[in-house]
Amino acid sequence: MSSESSGAAATASGEGPASPDTGLLAPVRAGTAAEAATSDHAWLRAMLAAEAALARAQARAGAAPQDAARVIGRVTETITVDPADLARRARQAANPVVPLVAELRRAVAARDPEAAKHVHRGATSQDILDSAAMLVSREAVGITLSELERAMGTLAGLAETHRHTLMAARTLGQHAVPTTFGLRAADWLAGLLHARDRLRGLRLPAQLGGAAGTLAALGGDPELSHLFAEELGLQAPLVPWHAERSVVAELGAALAQTAGALGKVALDVIMLSQTEVGEVAESSAGQSSAMPHKRNPALSVLVRSAALQVPVYAQLLTSAQLAEHERAAGAWQAEWHPLRECLRLTAGAAETTAELVGGLRILPGRMRANVGLTGDRIVSERLAALLGRDRVDLASAQDGPLRQALAGEVPADVFDPADYLGAAQALIDRVLTAYREQP
Amino acid sequence: MSSESSGAAATASGEGPASPDTGLLAPVRAGTAAEAATSDHAWLRAMLAAEAALARAQARAGAAPQDAARVIGRVTETITVDPADLARRARQAANPVVPLVAELRRAVAARDPEAAKHVHRGATSQDILDSAAMLVSREAVGITLSELERAMGTLAGLAETHRHTLMAARTLGQHAVPTTFGLRAADWLAGLLHARDRLRGLRLPAQLGGAAGTLAALGGDPELSHLFAEELGLQAPLVPWHAERSVVAELGAALAQTAGALGKVALDVIMLSQTEVGEVAESSAGQSSAMPHKRNPALSVLVRSAALQVPVYAQLLTSAQLAEHERAAGAWQAEWHPLRECLRLTAGAAETTAELVGGLRILPGRMRANVGLTGDRIVSERLAALLGRDRVDLASAQDGPLRQALAGEVPADVFDPADYLGAAQALIDRVLTAYREQP
Amino acid sequence: MSSESSGAAATASGEGPASPDTGLLAPVRAGTAAEAATSDHAWLRAMLAAEAALARAQARAGAAPQDAARVIGRVTETITVDPADLARRARQAANPVVPLVAELRRAVAARDPEAAKHVHRGATSQDILDSAAMLVSREAVGITLSELERAMGTLAGLAETHRHTLMAARTLGQHAVPTTFGLRAADWLAGLLHARDRLRGLRLPAQLGGAAGTLAALGGDPELSHLFAEELGLQAPLVPWHAERSVVAELGAALAQTAGALGKVALDVIMLSQTEVGEVAESSAGQSSAMPHKRNPALSVLVRSAALQVPVYAQLLTSAQLAEHERAAGAWQAEWHPLRECLRLTAGAAETTAELVGGLRILPGRMRANVGLTGDRIVSERLAALLGRDRVDLASAQDGPLRQALAGEVPADVFDPADYLGAAQALIDRVLTAYREQP
Amino acid sequence: MSSESSGAAATASGEGPASPDTGLLAPVRAGTAAEAATSDHAWLRAMLAAEAALARAQARAGAAPQDAARVIGRVTETITVDPADLARRARQAANPVVPLVAELRRAVAARDPEAAKHVHRGATSQDILDSAAMLVSREAVGITLSELERAMGTLAGLAETHRHTLMAARTLGQHAVPTTFGLRAADWLAGLLHARDRLRGLRLPAQLGGAAGTLAALGGDPELSHLFAEELGLQAPLVPWHAERSVVAELGAALAQTAGALGKVALDVIMLSQTEVGEVAESSAGQSSAMPHKRNPALSVLVRSAALQVPVYAQLLTSAQLAEHERAAGAWQAEWHPLRECLRLTAGAAETTAELVGGLRILPGRMRANVGLTGDRIVSERLAALLGRDRVDLASAQDGPLRQALAGEVPADVFDPADYLGAAQALIDRVLTAYREQP
Repeated sequence: MSSESSGAAATASGEGPASPDTGLLAPVRAGTAAEAATSDHAWLRAMLAAEAALARAQARAGAAPQDAARVIGRVTETITVDPADLARRARQAANPVVPLVAELRRAVAARDPEAAKHVHRGATSQDILDSAAMLVSREAVGITLSELERAMGTLAGLAETHRHTLMAARTLGQHAVPTTFGLRAADWLAGLLHARDRLRGLRLPAQLGGAAGTLAALGGDPELSHLFAEELGLQAPLVPWHAERSVVAELGAALAQTAGALGKVALDVIMLSQTEVGEVAESSAGQSSAMPHKRNPALSVLVRSAALQVPVYAQLLTSAQLAEHERAAGAWQAEWHPLRECLRLTAGAAETTAELVGGLRILPGRMRANVGLTGDRIVSERLAALLGRDRVDLASAQDGPLRQALAGEVPADVFDPADYLGAAQALIDRVLTAYREQP
Repeated sequence: MSSESSGAAATASGEGPASPDTGLLAPVRAGTAAEAATSDHAWLRAMLAAEAALARAQARAGAAPQDAARVIGRVTETITVDPADLARRARQAANPVVPLVAELRRAVAARDPEAAKHVHRGATSQDILDSAAMLVSREAVGITLSELERAMGTLAGLAETHRHTLMAARTLGQHAVPTTFGLRAADWLAGLLHARDRLRGLRLPAQLGGAAGTLAALGGDPELSHLFAEELGLQAPLVPWHAERSVVAELGAALAQTAGALGKVALDVIMLSQTEVGEVAESSAGQSSAMPHKRNPALSVLVRSAALQVPVYAQLLTSAQLAEHERAAGAWQAEWHPLRECLRLTAGAAETTAELVGGLRILPGRMRANVGLTGDRIVSERLAALLGRDRVDLASAQDGPLRQALAGEVPADVFDPADYLGAAQALIDRVLTAYREQP
Repeated sequence: MSSESSGAAATASGEGPASPDTGLLAPVRAGTAAEAATSDHAWLRAMLAAEAALARAQARAGAAPQDAARVIGRVTETITVDPADLARRARQAANPVVPLVAELRRAVAARDPEAAKHVHRGATSQDILDSAAMLVSREAVGITLSELERAMGTLAGLAETHRHTLMAARTLGQHAVPTTFGLRAADWLAGLLHARDRLRGLRLPAQLGGAAGTLAALGGDPELSHLFAEELGLQAPLVPWHAERSVVAELGAALAQTAGALGKVALDVIMLSQTEVGEVAESSAGQSSAMPHKRNPALSVLVRSAALQVPVYAQLLTSAQLAEHERAAGAWQAEWHPLRECLRLTAGAAETTAELVGGLRILPGRMRANVGLTGDRIVSERLAALLGRDRVDLASAQDGPLRQALAGEVPADVFDPADYLGAAQALIDRVLTAYREQP
Repeated sequence: MSSESSGAAATASGEGPASPDTGLLAPVRAGTAAEAATSDHAWLRAMLAAEAALARAQARAGAAPQDAARVIGRVTETITVDPADLARRARQAANPVVPLVAELRRAVAARDPEAAKHVHRGATSQDILDSAAMLVSREAVGITLSELERAMGTLAGLAETHRHTLMAARTLGQHAVPTTFGLRAADWLAGLLHARDRLRGLRLPAQLGGAAGTLAALGGDPELSHLFAEELGLQAPLVPWHAERSVVAELGAALAQTAGALGKVALDVIMLSQTEVGEVAESSAGQSSAMPHKRNPALSVLVRSAALQVPVYAQLLTSAQLAEHERAAGAWQAEWHPLRECLRLTAGAAETTAELVGGLRILPGRMRANVGLTGDRIVSERLAALLGRDRVDLASAQDGPLRQALAGEVPADVFDPADYLGAAQALIDRVLTAYREQP
C-alpha cells in the first residue's frame, strides 16, 4: 500500500508522525488483536476505567455522591487524551497517571466542579496504573487463551489423524527410534495444556492502597478495595501489593511458559521443514526477496522469535520483586514496558501458532522415507535387546541395511519400525483425554 | 581454621585437589543443608536411586526378576563413584549417566552377571537424569519450604507485636504517610505466603520414556512410569516430558519468585538499617575488615545477592523449553547447572532469611523519631484533604512543622501520625488470618 | 492537553488509531530525540536509504545505469509507506523488507519501468535490514554520545566545585570513612568516560552479501560492499555477517554498559535524596498524585528503570550469536525489537541524566551534618590504626562521640573527618585529566 | 572408575564429603584447565597473592618493613586454608576475605608478631577480592585465548582446504544458493577473530582504594595502587573502582561474545550432522546409553550448552553496575559466582571447540549430494535474474529438475552450482588475511 495521505506514514521529508512502534520490528504481533489490546490507547482506557471504578466504588461505600461518580464515569468515556503528549509529561512525575489525573480533573471540573473533587480521591498513581495493568493483562491473557484453544483444537485433530503416521524420533539431532507424528502433535498439545492451566490459574487482582498501602485517605476502609475490584471485574487482593510484586512475577512466568510451549511447536516445524527433512511445510510458506524457490517457515520463525524474547522480558518482572519500602524507585517503573511485551508477544505468538498449525501440511511420505534413511538402524535399540549390543555394533558398522547384515538372526518383523512404537497409542490417548476432560 | 592435612585445602604449592566450588563465592548457601542436598554427591545418589527404582518397578511389572532388582538396589547403595572422574568422562556422551551406567553395570556384574543385564534396561540417560533432578529438587524445595515456615513464624510474630509500632512509609525513597512496622512485616509475610503456595503447587514428576519417549524398549507399558514414580515417591507424569519442559520452567519460576520474596525482605532491612535510618539492625551484624565501627547487614546482603541471581538463572530454565524434537541438543544440557543454582541459592536464601528475621532488632524509638523528621509533612495528604492542596503546598514551603504554619486551621490530632494509619490493623489481620488458616 | 481532534488520541469509543507505543510506558525516552531516531518511521527511512545506496553503489561499479540509481534514489525520498500496514504484511515473509521492496518496485516502475529492475537487485532482505539497523544505531549512538558529553561536562564541574565538600562514604549502606562529593562526582564521570570509549570504539558496518553471503547475484564483486558502505557512511565489513553477529552483540554490550554507568548516577541520587539523607535533590523534583509534600527523584527513577532493562535486552543481542547456517530462523528476527529498546532507552537515559545532573541541587550542609551522625566513628579506621582495634571497639561500644571516650589518647585533629580524606584530591585530578585529555 | 577409598567419592551412606560441584552438571568444563584455574582453591591463592603483593608494594613505598613483606609473602605461599570452612565463615561478613585475613594474620603472627601488623594494612576486603578476581580472570582469559588460537588454526586450515568444497547455503533452514564449506569455516574463523580482539583489549586492573576508595588508611598515596598493580602484573586502574564496575561488565560482555562465537560453530555442526544432512561428523562421536547406532555430536552439544548460559550470566555482571554509594550491598556479592561461570564455561567451551574442530570429519560427498536435492532450485536466484522471476516460479512449481523444465532457455552451465559461488574465494582470502596479519 502506498498512499499520499495516511497520517502515520513515513516520508523522507519527515513531516509524518514519528510512530515509535507500529509493529514493524515485531511482525509476530503486528496488526493482531493483542497489539491493539495492549496499545498505549488501551492502557489509557484502562487507567480511565480504573478512575471511574474508584469513584463508583466510593459512591457505593457512601464516600462519594452518586452524581459525582456518574459524571466522572461519563467523562472517562468521552475524554480525548493524546498519549504521546501524556507520555512526555509523564517524565516529570515518573509516571503517566499524574498528568492523566490532571487532564481528567480539568475535564470533570468543566462539567461539574463538585464532582472534580472526587476524581482520584484518596488514590495513588500506582493504584491506577497497577489496576490498569491488570485490566490490560486480563484482556491479553484472554486473547492468548482463546488462541491457545484454537491451536489445541487443531493439534488434537492432528494427534488423532496422524496417530499411526510413522516418523523418526530424533535426539540430539540424530535418528533415535520410530515414533508417530501423532505422538509429536500430542506432545505439543501437552505443552499447551500446561501453559493454559497456568494462565487460567493466574491471580489478576485490583490494586487499591492509597499513598502507601494503608488506605488512609480512602477512609481506612479495606472493603473499598473489594468494591473497586468488583467494579473492574478483577479479583480482590489480600492486601495492597504496591511493593509485594508476586502478582506480576507470576504473570510474567506464566506468559513465558506459554511462549515457550508455543516456541517448541515452532522450533519443531522449522526443524521438520528443513530442505533435507521436508516432513512438514507451512501452508502459505513465506517468500524470499531474493530466491524464487524458497518456502520459508515464516510463521514458525516469528513464533520462535517471540519465544526467544518473552522469557528474557519475564525475567525483569520477576526481578522487580526487589522493590524497596512501599514503592520501588525504578523497579516498578521497569515493569511496565516488559509486561506489555510479554503480553503482546505471547498473544501474538499464540495467534500465529494457531494459524501455523491450522495450515500445516503433513507429508507422511517423506516421514516414512526418512525413517528408512539409516537402513534399519532406527530399530537398533530393539536389535541390541535381542542380540546384544556388541553384535549390533558390529552389524551397524557395515554398509547397507541391518536386515541384510543380520538376516536370519531375528524374525523379519523386528525390522519393521511400525512394530516398535511402544506405548505411542496409549500416550496419545492420555493427552487427548486430558485435553477433552478439562475444557 | 588452618591445617596441614585437610585434603581439600588450598596451598600455594598446588598439590591439593582443585575444589571447583565449595561455596567460597556464594556464602549465602555455604555449608547449608541445601548445598549438601544439591551437591554432585547428592545428584549421583539420586541417579543411582533412579536406576534402583527402575529395576524395582520392572520387577513389580514382571519385566525383571525380583532378584536382579534386589542386587541392583544393593549395589546402588554401596557403590563408590568419584564424581570428578565421572564428570570428565561425561564429556564424551555429553551427559554423566552414560559413564555412571557403565560403572554400575560393572559393579552389578561383579556380583551377579544376570542382574547386570537389567541395569538401566530400556531407559535412556534423560530418564535417569531428569528423575534425579526431580529427587534433588524435592529435597531442596522441602528445605526451602521448612525455612520459609521458620521465617514466616517469626514474621507473623513481628506483625502482631509491632502492629502499632509507628513508622514512615516510603515511596520512591521519600516519606509518604505513616504506617506501622507490623504492617511492613505483614507485607513481607504475604510475599512469603504466595511463594510458599507456588512451591507447594509444583509438579515434580518422574521421567520415563525410553530412548525417545515411546517406552518401546520398556515393553511399551505406560503403567511402568507410574510404578517407577511410585518407587521414587514422585508424581506420575501425564506423558514423558523429554522435550516438553514445562516442569522445569515452572520449577525455576517458583524458585525465582521465592528468591524475590526473600530478597524483598533483605532489601528492606538494608534500607532500614542505613546509618541515617537506623530503624532495624541485624543481631550479629557483620564486621568489616577495615572499619571497627561498622555493623554491616551481612545476612541481608547475602540474601539480596541470591535474589539478584535466581531470576536470571531461572530464565534459562524457561528458555530451555525451546527443545527441538525428542531431546534437545544443548538446551537440555544447559538446564542442569542453573537448576542447581536456583535450588541452592533459594534454599540458602530462605535459611539465611530465617536467621536474619529471627535475630532482627527493631528500634521503635528511631522509627518514631524518623516519622517526625519532616515536621508533620508525613500527614500532608490528610491536611490537603481537609484544607485543599494549595493551602498545604503553601504551608509546606515554609520552614518548621506544619502544626505551626497551620495552627488553628485543623484540630491538633490531625497532625498525629498515629491517627492516620487507615486500615493498617485490618490489613495486618488479613495477612495473619491467611497465614494461620493455611498451615 | 485535551483535544477533540488529535489523530492519535485515545477515546473510549475506540475510533482512534491504536498507537501501540507512544512512550506512555517508557517516559524515560518519551518525546526524546532518540525515540524519534529509532521510530518505525526512522527504520523505514533507513531501509529506503539502504536501497538507494545499493543502486548508487551498483551504478558506481558499472553494474547499473546511473539513471536507474537516480530514479530509485528520488523515489526512496518521496515514497510514502504506512509502517503499520507494512508491519502486517511483514508477517508473511517474516520480515518487513519483502513488502517494502514490493512497494518500492511498484513506485519506481510507475516512473521508469527499466529502473524498477534495479531495485534491490541481487540483495537479500537481511542486507537491507541489517544496514538500516546500523544507520539507526549510528544515529542513536550519536545522540547518546552527545548527551553523555553534556552530562560529563556537568559532572566535571561538580567534581571541581565540590572537591572539598565533605561527605560520608558508605559501604553496604553504612557510613565507612569520609570522602568528598567531588570524588563521588568524579567516580560517576569515570563510569561515563569508560562507556563513551566503548561507544566510540563500536564497529557499525554495512551489510551486503546477497542471498547467503557470497554476493553471487551481486556479480560476485566483494568491492561492492565497500562502495555500498561508503554510500551509507558506514564502515566496510570484513565479510558479510548474516550469521556472524558479533557486531550486534558488541553494540548491545556497549549500550548496556552505558545504561549501567548512567544508572549508577541515578541510583546514587536516589539514595542520597532519601528523606533521612537529604544530601542532594533533583531541581524540579517530581510531584506525587497523592502527597503534596513529596519531592520525588523522578528523573533518577526513570534513568534507573532504563538501566534495569537495558542489560536484559542486550542479553538477547548476545544470545542471538547462536545463528544457524547462513541466516538464523528466529534468532535474527529476535534482535530487532530489543536492539531498538537498547538504543532508545540508553539514549533516553543519557538525555535524562544530563538533565538530572544539570539541575542537581547539592546540599553541603546536610552532607556535613550526616558525616557527624556517628559521633566520630566515621574515622574509627584511623583511630584503630593509632590505638589498636580493641581499644576502638571498646570506645565505640559506649554512647557519645569517640572524641570524649578517647580524649587525650590521640591529638584532636585525628577526629577531624576533613583530615582523613586520603588521596581524594589526587583521584579527582586523575579523572578530570583523563576527561580533559580525551575530548 | 570405582573405588572404595576416594576421598571425594559419593556413597549412599553419605559419609563422603559433599562435593558441591566437581563438574558433574557442566561437563563442558569438567576436568579442564579452566576449571582448575577458577576453582575455590585458585581464588584463595589469588587472594593470598593479593595480600602478599600489598605488603610488598607498601614495603617498596616505604610504608612497611621489607622484612614484614617477606614474612607475609612466605606465609601466603605455605599457609593451608580449607575453602569450605572459610566459605561458611564468610557468611558473617558477607565476604570470604574477612575470615581469610584472620587466618593469615594468625599464621603470620606465629612467625613474626611485628609482621602481622602489616597484614591487609589499610586495605578493604573488596581490594583483595576484586584484585583476586582479576588474577583469576587473567588466567582463565589466557587459557581461552590459547584455546581460541588452537581452534582458529584448525579453522584456517579448513577454510583453505575446503575453499572449493561445494555446499548448500541455508537460510531459515532452507537451501538458498550454493556456497563452499571453506567459506563457512572462514565465517566461523571471523567470529573467533572478533572475540579474540575483544578479549585481548580487556582492561584487567588491580583494585586498591582502602575502606571506601580514598586510600586514606593506605597513607593517601595514589601511587601505591600502581606499585600494587605492578606486583600483581595487572594494569593500574585510573581510580579505585569499588562501585564503578565497568571492568567487570566489559569482561562479562567479552566472554559472552566469545561463548557466542564458539556456540555458532557448535550449532552449525549440530545442524550439519543431523541424520538427514550428514555433511560433517564429530570424530569420536558420542555414544548413547540406549541406541547402539547413534553418533551424537556430543562436543558440540556441550559447547552449545555453554553458549546458551554465558550471555545470561554475563547479564548479571552488566547489571551489577547498579552499585550504590562506595560499595554495593548485594550487587557486588552477586558478581562473584556468575563471573566464575562466565570464565570457566567460556574457556571450557573454547577447549571443547578446539577439540571439536580438530577432529571434525568433513563429508564432501554428502555436501555435494545435498546441493542437488532441490533439482537445480539452488540456482533459482540466478535463473530468475536471467529469465525473470515469473518464469522461474512457473518452472519451479513443476516436478523434476529445473534443467529439464528450462532446457534450452539458458546455457547449461548456468545450472552448475559451482559456477554460482560469487565472491566466495575472495571472502575466504579476506578472513585468512585478517587472521594471518594479526597473530
